[in-house]
Amino acid sequence: MNFQRLISILNNFWSQHGCLIGQSYDMEKGAATKNPHTFLRVLGPEPWSVAYVEPCRRPTDGRYGENPNRFQHYYQYQVLIKPSLENIQEIYLDSLRALDIYPEDHDVRFVEDNWEDATVGAWGAGWEVWLDGMEVTQFTYFQQCGGIDCHPVSVEITYGLERLAMYLQGVETITKIKWTDHINYGDIHLQGEIEQCTYNFEASNPEMLQRLFEIYEKEASQLAEKGLVLPSLDYILKCSHTFNLLDARGVVSVTERTRYITKIRYLSRLIAQVHLEQREKLGFPLMRKQQ
Amino acid sequence: MNFQRLISILNNFWSQHGCLIGQSYDMEKGAATKNPHTFLRVLGPEPWSVAYVEPCRRPTDGRYGENPNRFQHYYQYQVLIKPSLENIQEIYLDSLRALDIYPEDHDVRFVEDNWEDATVGAWGAGWEVWLDGMEVTQFTYFQQCGGIDCHPVSVEITYGLERLAMYLQGVETITKIKWTDHINYGDIHLQGEIEQCTYNFEASNPEMLQRLFEIYEKEASQLAEKGLVLPSLDYILKCSHTFNLLDARGVVSVTERTRYITKIRYLSRLIAQVHLEQREKLGFPLMRKQQ
Repeated sequence: MNFQRLISILNNFWSQHGCLIGQSYDMEKGAATKNPHTFLRVLGPEPWSVAYVEPCRRPTDGRYGENPNRFQHYYQYQVLIKPSLENIQEIYLDSLRALDIYPEDHDVRFVEDNWEDATVGAWGAGWEVWLDGMEVTQFTYFQQCGGIDCHPVSVEITYGLERLAMYLQGVETITKIKWTDHINYGDIHLQGEIEQCTYNFEASNPEMLQRLFEIYEKEASQLAEKGLVLPSLDYILKCSHTFNLLDARGVVSVTERTRYITKIRYLSRLIAQVHLEQREKLGFPLMRKQQ
Repeated sequence: MNFQRLISILNNFWSQHGCLIGQSYDMEKGAATKNPHTFLRVLGPEPWSVAYVEPCRRPTDGRYGENPNRFQHYYQYQVLIKPSLENIQEIYLDSLRALDIYPEDHDVRFVEDNWEDATVGAWGAGWEVWLDGMEVTQFTYFQQCGGIDCHPVSVEITYGLERLAMYLQGVETITKIKWTDHINYGDIHLQGEIEQCTYNFEASNPEMLQRLFEIYEKEASQLAEKGLVLPSLDYILKCSHTFNLLDARGVVSVTERTRYITKIRYLSRLIAQVHLEQREKLGFPLMRKQQ
């Protein structure tokens, strides 16, 4: 089962289970949670079920493509369902069956692991899913996002696509994952991975990044005050990624780290609030839609 | 046929025709051509066949969601095949058949329309495809990219997904496209479209954008000199989008426009050259792969 087939099967599976198949967001980000399909839509009472692939960048995780299962750029497969379903764990296990992984033949464990992203004021109770000793999925019940309580609670299911593909294909390194039957993951991404690591750890300009952070923060703030949710969110995401770049460059002191995180969290809370007020003003239109 | 089904059918079709199904690029951009899957891979002798969905942002095209078929944010479906195939037009018509559009029952015209993107030094001979009077696809044979002659020539096929969906569903406005059977395109994107138009035309800060352009340009340039192709391309894309934002804000004089475009073109040529040298040094590895 090649990488693109794996994605296609998950799309079909979750589409059949009532999810809208969304597209990834055209902004650098550390997790699929930051796509507005999740970050904004988990808020408020409107039902929402979506699945999508998200390219993620986590600069500090880079190892110049030398670590067999750690890249700073990778793909998450994200499912978000609001309200959560009672039998969601069973449905998830069915998604593994759709991938020819029969849980009854394997050691599948749900290991308690609550999740938090302090920068966006989000946290939830959840589990990691371990498949024969390898973490392949994160399950989270969103309790808060942008510092706002989630009513109803959404469930987020995040598959590590590379991990799953390595498991299914029996390969030992990310680079050897077959994307198609002829082209490997490494053919597509290895050179870029090495270059981005070089950029993140050696070649980026910390002073420039600090200047960018300040510019982005100011813009996110003035746009939130004008009630422009999505334009403001774009700049918050830029703040967040810029902070991650500074962090990878090793130039963020403990005090500064707190200051950066506090600023991003403040903006995230602000925009979550503005978004919720806006949806209320619009009359929560998705309440009238059946998914 | 809902929007996500349309995408799924195109993915299946082009996958069966030997294309790698890629993912969109996590950077704001005006066209799928700017994804490295196209912009970099059209260069040099290595074979490459890819298809993917790309979210695009063209600030000047925004109409606050009021024009029935013009949004500043929309989705392209991009196919790139190198070298081009003799019977590619016939294969394209088969892709319409896969969507239940039988060309023999419709007025399908290939209207000569050469394509150029001066900012990235790219141009090609090609056609627009008109289906019963509506442009639904652009066909381009790449002659140059980043100012470098393309040997062999690639063919690029860019479907306007919204146009195709409106045609297939018989709806008169983008907002009414059924994304799933229950959720419309407008439910997902209308509010964001209005806000982004407000940002692009009214709320963006031109001085800040000019400052960003200068920062991005300098960074793209220093990274290209270091041979860091992908990190440099990221900043070139940022330059390009920032210029488009300035343009939408109506603050670019004729002289300045030339100056901006010249700078972006210079960087694009530089990075295309560095990329090609890098592939050569790597021994053009995809020459040994069958797609």
